[in-house]
Amino acid sequence: MYRKKYAPIGSVPGTLVLDANSDRPNIQSFIYDQNHVEENICSGTLDSTEYFKELDKIISSTAKSKEVTWLDIKSVLNEETLKRIALAYSLHDLTISDIVNVPQRPKIEEQESYVLIILAIPTLEEDCTISVEQISIVVGTNYVLTFQEHDRDVFNPIRQRIRQAKGSIRKSGSDHLAYALIDAIIDNYFPILEEIGTHLEEIEEELVDNPNKSTLSDIYTAKRTLLQLRRSIWPHREIFSAILRDEFKIFKKTTRTFVRDIYDHTVEIIDVVETYRELAGGFMDIYLSSISNKLNDVMKVLTVISTIFIPLSFFAGIYGMNFENMPELHSKYGYPILLVAMFVVGATMLFIFWKKGWLSSEKISEDS
Amino acid sequence: MYRKKYAPIGSVPGTLVLDANSDRPNIQSFIYDQNHVEENICSGTLDSTEYFKELDKIISSTAKSKEVTWLDIKSVLNEETLKRIALAYSLHDLTISDIVNVPQRPKIEEQESYVLIILAIPTLEEDCTISVEQISIVVGTNYVLTFQEHDRDVFNPIRQRIRQAKGSIRKSGSDHLAYALIDAIIDNYFPILEEIGTHLEEIEEELVDNPNKSTLSDIYTAKRTLLQLRRSIWPHREIFSAILRDEFKIFKKTTRTFVRDIYDHTVEIIDVVETYRELAGGFMDIYLSSISNKLNDVMKVLTVISTIFIPLSFFAGIYGMNFENMPELHSKYGYPILLVAMFVVGATMLFIFWKKGWLSSEKISEDS
Amino acid sequence: MYRKKYAPIGSVPGTLVLDANSDRPNIQSFIYDQNHVEENICSGTLDSTEYFKELDKIISSTAKSKEVTWLDIKSVLNEETLKRIALAYSLHDLTISDIVNVPQRPKIEEQESYVLIILAIPTLEEDCTISVEQISIVVGTNYVLTFQEHDRDVFNPIRQRIRQAKGSIRKSGSDHLAYALIDAIIDNYFPILEEIGTHLEEIEEELVDNPNKSTLSDIYTAKRTLLQLRRSIWPHREIFSAILRDEFKIFKKTTRTFVRDIYDHTVEIIDVVETYRELAGGFMDIYLSSISNKLNDVMKVLTVISTIFIPLSFFAGIYGMNFENMPELHSKYGYPILLVAMFVVGATMLFIFWKKGWLSSEKISEDS
Amino acid sequence: MYRKKYAPIGSVPGTLVLDANSDRPNIQSFIYDQNHVEENICSGTLDSTEYFKELDKIISSTAKSKEVTWLDIKSVLNEETLKRIALAYSLHDLTISDIVNVPQRPKIEEQESYVLIILAIPTLEEDCTISVEQISIVVGTNYVLTFQEHDRDVFNPIRQRIRQAKGSIRKSGSDHLAYALIDAIIDNYFPILEEIGTHLEEIEEELVDNPNKSTLSDIYTAKRTLLQLRRSIWPHREIFSAILRDEFKIFKKTTRTFVRDIYDHTVEIIDVVETYRELAGGFMDIYLSSISNKLNDVMKVLTVISTIFIPLSFFAGIYGMNFENMPELHSKYGYPILLVAMFVVGATMLFIFWKKGWLSSEKISEDS
Amino acid sequence: MYRKKYAPIGSVPGTLVLDANSDRPNIQSFIYDQNHVEENICSGTLDSTEYFKELDKIISSTAKSKEVTWLDIKSVLNEETLKRIALAYSLHDLTISDIVNVPQRPKIEEQESYVLIILAIPTLEEDCTISVEQISIVVGTNYVLTFQEHDRDVFNPIRQRIRQAKGSIRKSGSDHLAYALIDAIIDNYFPILEEIGTHLEEIEEELVDNPNKSTLSDIYTAKRTLLQLRRSIWPHREIFSAILRDEFKIFKKTTRTFVRDIYDHTVEIIDVVETYRELAGGFMDIYLSSISNKLNDVMKVLTVISTIFIPLSFFAGIYGMNFENMPELHSKYGYPILLVAMFVVGATMLFIFWKKGWLSSEKISEDS
Repeated sequence: MYRKKYAPIGSVPGTLVLDANSDRPNIQSFIYDQNHVEENICSGTLDSTEYFKELDKIISSTAKSKEVTWLDIKSVLNEETLKRIALAYSLHDLTISDIVNVPQRPKIEEQESYVLIILAIPTLEEDCTISVEQISIVVGTNYVLTFQEHDRDVFNPIRQRIRQAKGSIRKSGSDHLAYALIDAIIDNYFPILEEIGTHLEEIEEELVDNPNKSTLSDIYTAKRTLLQLRRSIWPHREIFSAILRDEFKIFKKTTRTFVRDIYDHTVEIIDVVETYRELAGGFMDIYLSSISNKLNDVMKVLTVISTIFIPLSFFAGIYGMNFENMPELHSKYGYPILLVAMFVVGATMLFIFWKKGWLSSEKISEDS
Repeated sequence: MYRKKYAPIGSVPGTLVLDANSDRPNIQSFIYDQNHVEENICSGTLDSTEYFKELDKIISSTAKSKEVTWLDIKSVLNEETLKRIALAYSLHDLTISDIVNVPQRPKIEEQESYVLIILAIPTLEEDCTISVEQISIVVGTNYVLTFQEHDRDVFNPIRQRIRQAKGSIRKSGSDHLAYALIDAIIDNYFPILEEIGTHLEEIEEELVDNPNKSTLSDIYTAKRTLLQLRRSIWPHREIFSAILRDEFKIFKKTTRTFVRDIYDHTVEIIDVVETYRELAGGFMDIYLSSISNKLNDVMKVLTVISTIFIPLSFFAGIYGMNFENMPELHSKYGYPILLVAMFVVGATMLFIFWKKGWLSSEKISEDS
Repeated sequence: MYRKKYAPIGSVPGTLVLDANSDRPNIQSFIYDQNHVEENICSGTLDSTEYFKELDKIISSTAKSKEVTWLDIKSVLNEETLKRIALAYSLHDLTISDIVNVPQRPKIEEQESYVLIILAIPTLEEDCTISVEQISIVVGTNYVLTFQEHDRDVFNPIRQRIRQAKGSIRKSGSDHLAYALIDAIIDNYFPILEEIGTHLEEIEEELVDNPNKSTLSDIYTAKRTLLQLRRSIWPHREIFSAILRDEFKIFKKTTRTFVRDIYDHTVEIIDVVETYRELAGGFMDIYLSSISNKLNDVMKVLTVISTIFIPLSFFAGIYGMNFENMPELHSKYGYPILLVAMFVVGATMLFIFWKKGWLSSEKISEDS
Repeated sequence: MYRKKYAPIGSVPGTLVLDANSDRPNIQSFIYDQNHVEENICSGTLDSTEYFKELDKIISSTAKSKEVTWLDIKSVLNEETLKRIALAYSLHDLTISDIVNVPQRPKIEEQESYVLIILAIPTLEEDCTISVEQISIVVGTNYVLTFQEHDRDVFNPIRQRIRQAKGSIRKSGSDHLAYALIDAIIDNYFPILEEIGTHLEEIEEELVDNPNKSTLSDIYTAKRTLLQLRRSIWPHREIFSAILRDEFKIFKKTTRTFVRDIYDHTVEIIDVVETYRELAGGFMDIYLSSISNKLNDVMKVLTVISTIFIPLSFFAGIYGMNFENMPELHSKYGYPILLVAMFVVGATMLFIFWKKGWLSSEKISEDS
Repeated sequence: MYRKKYAPIGSVPGTLVLDANSDRPNIQSFIYDQNHVEENICSGTLDSTEYFKELDKIISSTAKSKEVTWLDIKSVLNEETLKRIALAYSLHDLTISDIVNVPQRPKIEEQESYVLIILAIPTLEEDCTISVEQISIVVGTNYVLTFQEHDRDVFNPIRQRIRQAKGSIRKSGSDHLAYALIDAIIDNYFPILEEIGTHLEEIEEELVDNPNKSTLSDIYTAKRTLLQLRRSIWPHREIFSAILRDEFKIFKKTTRTFVRDIYDHTVEIIDVVETYRELAGGFMDIYLSSISNKLNDVMKVLTVISTIFIPLSFFAGIYGMNFENMPELHSKYGYPILLVAMFVVGATMLFIFWKKGWLSSEKISEDS
């Protein structure tokens, strides 16, 4: 649950834990305004010279034009690529460090010429745990850079909207593009919440019908997943409320209306996560009381059987003694009288237990 | 507990998850001032042309007059209807999205020409769970639009007051109408609280008299219902306190006095919900300790019976042995002496258990 | 614990749930300044004409004089009486509604010409639950109105001080009178705290000496009472801190010094209530562990007895078998040797259990 | 834990619950500046005329001189003494009331000519509970009055420093003296924390080595003591932070630097108390699970013994039957074969239990 | 967990609890600017005269030059050394007191000519507990003093960076040096978090596979360690946020950007600690329910064996009685019929228990 690459203690701030030999990332760029759109892909499979020539071409066009440029860098470990981009967009050492040393806590930070936004995008794994990936967004006046940990397709719908000029995205500036990207990221939380909701319902049914040891580990896993989800969603709230408080000039008023929508979604996600956490917390109590109930049922069976047969065995033991002078043994009706007496005692006890409700097969079968 | 229609991830903000073929909603309109009132119903059963002609007529009269117009749209899924209304009252894309994609978290939001208020109205179902419906209210300078999920009669008393000019509603503007509508919605929480209160009292009695497995699930259901209720009432508080802080110009000072009354009600509802939650939380502890008490009683019965008869059986076993040289067996008084000894031992043990209070039938009957 | 009269959903704000035929309340009035004091009683047993003539006389003298008038209305259900008072002091519809629809949450609210303060006065019932009564205080520039639910004598000491001109009450304005009345109300919490404190100590002793099932219900009742007390005292804090923040012009600086004293008392009450709640919360844990300890003791008795006698019975059983070829049976010393062996085994086991501390009668007697 | 003298409900604010006949308190006075120091003791054993003559002399010298006067009044119940001091230093009625009606909640309060500071000084009793005493400090421009509940020697080190002109105390004003006195009071919390820390460590060891019933009551007592300590230290924080926020003109900037030091101490005390509370909270869980573990061990012993011997006894019972036709009984090797069979069965069961780890004497001895 | 040297109660503030005879500390100094760097070591093994001559030389060069001076004092107990440094850099009495009386709560404090920062550096001991050491940093305009409790090598990487002019450290002022030192201290928390994370994972596995008594003490130790870690990291957050709020002029804007990075790290550490605390809290519940499950399994074994054999023994007992008139005994097939009947009864019971799932060896072996 907690694994992170650290720079060595006391190292120069911004030290990159990079592998100079790691693959060059795919970079997909869009340059667009209301009237036209240009799309380039700088593939990591190109050879080095070609690759950087292509990259420089994309970068240089940002500086010249008033159009919005979006660079989507699909991995963050190649040193040379990062250096060129950092130089072109004058990224601060600490910004680079935040982008590379994943995962950082989600945050927003203003630098001289841009705003850095770090977000966390969760994935629900097979075993119902959460893995979190970092996406870093650098928003400048006429450009947006996105850095992903791995090449995923989370931004595909945005690409479609740019190509097809759907909505107001092509008419608006870099801040609106940033909004659209953030929105696409936050939307990823909802299907996860839904799956967890379904999972909690399953656990609930299991708790009622047939609680067993796997139920316990299911409850624990659900609690841990919710804990992770909560830790990853909470910081986003601060990010969006900081934007709404108008702390960053790059976000214009019209865009802030849309960011308010993301903020509302985030609050809702938090709400649901907290509600689920309370529900899951209650499950543990139910599980514990169901174990106790089971123990009660086991003990009732033992007690009923023992309480009936131990006294009867005692009476049988009495008449199994070898005293010479035991007149009952010689009586003709001693044996049948004893049998009847035993039956009466046993039946009386059964009746008492039935009155106490210790025999009710309904209860016993219910939780067996 | 958590089911929601989502727009696809990354779709254009304000995308409507609408069914073009869904039924046209009933729309009931009031146009009134102090002196006169006009009521129209635009029924969903009319054919398309008639329906929209009627709708346009209602809408156009809003623009012209200084009177207050109230449109009550009794379902939100017909695309054409929504589009016309959105156009007429220049509703923002995000507003439409909030109205359609139910349930949203309750909130208040100012747009250029109107304020959007989203509220949640709860219903207590048969099985003691809560279902929540969204009501969206758009408050303009001289109009109020209400969008309900289903055609319910929650606003009937308000309609009566408009028709009969009761109270100050006909003398006041659109903000006072909005207040009256909100008040009618919030009032729905009180009877639910009362029912839950009664339900908690029943559980409490059951816990004292005869706790069983259905008690456990009753406690759990009550806790979950209170959790839902809490999640749905809390956001309202922020809404009303925002109005009281005078953040929205549309609400005049005289109306704010009344909104303060709703605010007080909301705080009271929250208070009661939190108190109930604490009570219900305590129930679990009592249930657990009652299970443990029951186990104690079961074990006492087992222990008393075993402790008395196991030693006695041992003595009977001794004299059931077949050793040739056992002088007691041949003594004339061996048998009666042993019987008396056994009786004394048994009685002594019973006395000890009685001193310990393990026999007190009062206790056993109490929790059987 | 939660019972309230509601106005019907959606009714005109300020609708009174009044019975026109209910008895006219006793009204006791004081009109005083530094030099003279006049006391009137308008008894509910007078006939209607007399009653209202008397009432009007009292009311009219408020308007004319600069002296302080205090009207103590000792029940709030007679419609005619309330209407006349509301008219005379121009009370807002919502004020009347707050006074009549008891219990309201304690609060303070400014209206044009007066401040409305709603307080809760608790009574500890026989069964250690709390019942709360509402007292509404309307403070004008030269008058104070108090509305009580029932005719109680909580204000008697204040009446004495006015009659005898004790302290500074006769020299000060209506705000000081209001302070004195509030002080008398808040003082009622202290003896209740003291009684609850004594009750908690009794429970504590019971937990240590002899925990039983009534202890459990005592703990639960105490927790519920503290919950009620907390819910009723907390809102007062906001009231007094609002006065201290100088939000209400009617309270002069000299009076605010005294209100600060009430504020300190309120904080102290809250402090004690929270401390008691924590203590009572810990009781449950102790109770649970005492049940478990009892179970342990029961099981130890069973285990000691069974573990000693079951093996011994087995040996007796061996020699009770009827095999023809059992040489031990015919040996002369078989029987005494076996008896000695059994004694040694039994004694050894007892010694082992004694070493384990399972026999220590101290422990068993302690919690029996 | 909660005992307090109350003034009767509704009495004039500032009513003193005093005994006119109580002993006159010892009063120790210092009048000093940088160059000289004068010390007087006005002993409670003097006769009335002498006593008040002496007192008046001390008081009068305050008014005249610019030197700092410190009056340490070592009991607060004599009415005449209090009245004279109140008159001389024009103390507000509420101030007197706060000084006399102990214990008040610690607080700071500004009056016209002085600041009243009420502090709580704790003592750890033999039985590990806390008793709290109130010390009231009145700080004027050139005088400090301290009122103690009983004649204790908590201020002795300060007296030494004044006499010997150690540190800057003789060079500074009344605010520095007040600081020194407060510091001496707050320092009393540290040794108590240390003792409680040692006590918690002892409990912890007991929990690991040999948890028993006295452990439970030790845990409870520790929790209660920490609760009391917390309730008494928390309000001090507000006092010192109010001084640091510069709300009281009497405290000069140089003194505030020192008060910041006390503030830091207070925060540290709170920190430690909260940490201890969390530790003590965890103890309960450990205790509960240790009881359960013990029960498990008891039950394992019972189960092992019963499971081995009950089946064996059954087989012995079979061959103790008196059927005529039981061929095994007449076989020569019946008996030894059965004995071997029994041994094999018993040994097998023992082996199974050993595999399950139910026999491991290490575990059993560990918690016996 | 809580051990501290206290100055005697009521002593002069700033009293040093020093040993005049304690060893003189090693002092390592750096004097540098962009172009040159000078390094001195004033070893504690020098004789007194040499030592102080050397020390004075270092100190005097601070006053003269505009270069940055860094004095690293590697122990704080020698009185003479401290006095000289305090005099040279005009340290306030309380500053000295904070440096010497370790451990103080981490804090930041401005004095006339410098800022005092007190930090806590944790070490994870062998037994998984935390020990905390204090490092005090005094930041002046052109000097930084660091006081360590013991001579550790935590600042080595910074020394390397100064010598090799790596990063911007040699180009920046004393505030940047302070930042670098603080960064090196805070970085020490990360490896500890990682180790605790691994430890928690081990506990988790143990809980699932084979919970035993050492698991309980592991959980408790982990919780206590996290409690200590939390107590030591929280105050740092206030320190860095105070710097970010620009409360201290000595920290320039460029440096504050870097401090923001430390702040983010601190928030992340707090985040992880709180997450771990929640996880560890859940472990206790799992442990308790695993004990209960084990008890259930033990009781099932006992119940199955007892329930089968006790009734069978009873039947054997019946036919072991010595009544003369028991016809079954003389029947030829009595014995085999009884054996068959016993087998049928036993098998039936086994079948019932198997249906109940009490026999499933999978379950029993799982948690044995």
